[in-house]
Amino acid sequence: MTTVTDFETLDVRFETSALLDGSDAMNPDPDYSAAYLRVSTDAPDGLEGHSFVFTIGRGNDVQVAAIEAVAHRVIGRDVEAILDDLGGFWREFVHDSQLRWLGPEKGVMHMAIGAVVNAFWDLKAKRAGLPLWQLLARMTPEQLVDLVDFRYLSDALTRDDALAILRAAEPGRADREAELLRTGYAGYTTTPGWLGYPDEKLRRLAREAVDEGFQQIKLKVGDRLEDDVRRLGIARAEVGPDIRIAIDANQRWDRDQAIKWIHALEPFDLAWVEEPTSPDDVLAHAAIARAVAPVRIATGEHGMSRVLFKQLLQADAAAIVQIDSTRVAGVNENIAILLLAAKFGVPVCPHAGGVGLCEAVQHFSMFDFVAVSGTQEGRMIEYTKHLHEHFVAPVELVGGRYRAPLAPGIGMEMLPESLRAHVFAEAALA
Amino acid sequence: MTTVTDFETLDVRFETSALLDGSDAMNPDPDYSAAYLRVSTDAPDGLEGHSFVFTIGRGNDVQVAAIEAVAHRVIGRDVEAILDDLGGFWREFVHDSQLRWLGPEKGVMHMAIGAVVNAFWDLKAKRAGLPLWQLLARMTPEQLVDLVDFRYLSDALTRDDALAILRAAEPGRADREAELLRTGYAGYTTTPGWLGYPDEKLRRLAREAVDEGFQQIKLKVGDRLEDDVRRLGIARAEVGPDIRIAIDANQRWDRDQAIKWIHALEPFDLAWVEEPTSPDDVLAHAAIARAVAPVRIATGEHGMSRVLFKQLLQADAAAIVQIDSTRVAGVNENIAILLLAAKFGVPVCPHAGGVGLCEAVQHFSMFDFVAVSGTQEGRMIEYTKHLHEHFVAPVELVGGRYRAPLAPGIGMEMLPESLRAHVFAEAALA
Repeated sequence: MTTVTDFETLDVRFETSALLDGSDAMNPDPDYSAAYLRVSTDAPDGLEGHSFVFTIGRGNDVQVAAIEAVAHRVIGRDVEAILDDLGGFWREFVHDSQLRWLGPEKGVMHMAIGAVVNAFWDLKAKRAGLPLWQLLARMTPEQLVDLVDFRYLSDALTRDDALAILRAAEPGRADREAELLRTGYAGYTTTPGWLGYPDEKLRRLAREAVDEGFQQIKLKVGDRLEDDVRRLGIARAEVGPDIRIAIDANQRWDRDQAIKWIHALEPFDLAWVEEPTSPDDVLAHAAIARAVAPVRIATGEHGMSRVLFKQLLQADAAAIVQIDSTRVAGVNENIAILLLAAKFGVPVCPHAGGVGLCEAVQHFSMFDFVAVSGTQEGRMIEYTKHLHEHFVAPVELVGGRYRAPLAPGIGMEMLPESLRAHVFAEAALA
Repeated sequence: MTTVTDFETLDVRFETSALLDGSDAMNPDPDYSAAYLRVSTDAPDGLEGHSFVFTIGRGNDVQVAAIEAVAHRVIGRDVEAILDDLGGFWREFVHDSQLRWLGPEKGVMHMAIGAVVNAFWDLKAKRAGLPLWQLLARMTPEQLVDLVDFRYLSDALTRDDALAILRAAEPGRADREAELLRTGYAGYTTTPGWLGYPDEKLRRLAREAVDEGFQQIKLKVGDRLEDDVRRLGIARAEVGPDIRIAIDANQRWDRDQAIKWIHALEPFDLAWVEEPTSPDDVLAHAAIARAVAPVRIATGEHGMSRVLFKQLLQADAAAIVQIDSTRVAGVNENIAILLLAAKFGVPVCPHAGGVGLCEAVQHFSMFDFVAVSGTQEGRMIEYTKHLHEHFVAPVELVGGRYRAPLAPGIGMEMLPESLRAHVFAEAALA
């Protein structure tokens, strides 16, 4: 038996706002940040579990405080007992009868629980010597469903439904794993499309994206319609008719405004329209989706929990599901949402970018391909160029496709020197 | 001009778990707690703004940290500028482009913003020498709608809709204020019904409730059906056919389980069934409401935001709206939800109990009566006996009715000696 001996949290922030990287209609000046957690044990292997919650600046200190409050409770615990029952570990915290008042299952406390759960997933994957996607893709269907909490899901997805999905995908696992290792997984890039970029930069970056092999780019919209029309015109002219262009409104509109705006942009042949309104508004998303069909609505970057995703799917409110892997509670809830999406036959294209999200989410898309949906059809992993250099195992893309990561762990470990250099000093950003 | 000079936060907890006060199917052992805030200024009046977020124990420290992070940003600000535009002040924090990543508009950060907003409402009411309900009920319709953020509401409630509701209620304001001062507002009591109480205590407390003049009691249910049947039988026998009995499942069931369970308890003539499933599950609440009609579904105690309440109302998922006044972001969002409920003609019976919630929510129900819905029909304020002695102006009930509070402020100020005595020392509860 080994024991959890210590943890460290760090408030890590990058001054991305200075360059307008990441700027959109609701987030004019994000400072990509990580509420970072490192968990250590007394095992002779010296392995540590690393994870973080992604935020965009102010409030990262509160997220760190929440992670500390949860992590404090695992000191002294039996590591093997945790790693052998990560489903039970998840439920212990998510259903803690006092902590759940602060959500339940949403916001700062939910994300903090996710960070702690993920640190142990990192440790489990490192002990197994496998990247997370392979660790998950080699678990049995029974082991996988034990990780998922079906409370509040049973009207859409039961344990038996989930088992059936996973068992149906079992025969092809080895072939698909080999395919992934050979050809990777499609990415799409948001790098050209930030709202704060001048037209010339948009034009240049759109061309570069095509040259790099991406088959889809994404543009931020929703501030001024005439700007959106101009920028979409520039982008479409630059990439030609065969490269897909998605747009992202980042929650800028009310329901009826969204419908009008999307109709105005429809001539540009939109791959999808992302976050048209409040991320919590299932009914408005459903109404927008009906009104603008066949244009497809995507959402989920701010989706707080499996209960929200369940409703979006039940209401035909999202044609593309975009999980933010550190907003929901860790690996377990990502799996729950992948299973829900598979049940409804809706593709998952996870939210990435920020700092470290590309490194994290690639595992879920690749696990989904090997062991859940069994397909890459209509599926892509978001990509932006920022901040990969700070990670122990940065993503690698070739010809616009993510290469399957091979480093053991969940991909969230940052370089010690990056952590040191970017620990937040309030004066630096004030 | 006066300036915000200082604030203090306190992690205040009461060991209510020792007595099983507050025990229900999901919260077996709550320790009623307040993440408490006191704001001071350099005004010669020496008035302070007091507020809190109610929690049930663990995690109260995280809530305090979040309040500190927000409160820190008001030090040095012009008090009059804040008090003259509390609508703008609310929007400044709720729509802060970086903070909103941690929600948006939900959970720890949203509640923290509410606490800071409420501290200034307390100051504004004290400066006016009025209890909050009177302060609000004497504002013009235009002043009131300026407090509300209609973003994401416009498909259900526009600024003009809200103005029309408030203007329609204007002529009778003076009469209804006089009526309130004369006869108060109906309460109902949850004191008999905690799940952890033995049958004899339930029986005794149910009889006491009737003797005290309450016309409705509420029982916690959802742990074991046979216990619920037995306890409802005891309560119904004790209170007779004329006293209403509501039940509260505290989110215990999945959709189809809720429908079956409620059908089994229907013979006991239920006033309403509260929180049958996940508080975030609009679609499941709507399905349950349709399936068990004419039994009425109540929810909202864990309702995170005006966007959720809007959907519950649009989907006919809630026949009674139960705002938790410190879960949504302060006075402003309480007003938004009162207006939404009025638009849909649904009564608001706010969640209370805990520590200090009765003292807080009475203001909203009374404001609603005077200036919004204009009626007390089908409306009540929850009541429990706990912890009123810790407040500067504890609620007063006569014959099961809340007397209209007259002390200036929002009612959340605790006695200094209570704050001192109950500041959390981790060892005390560990």
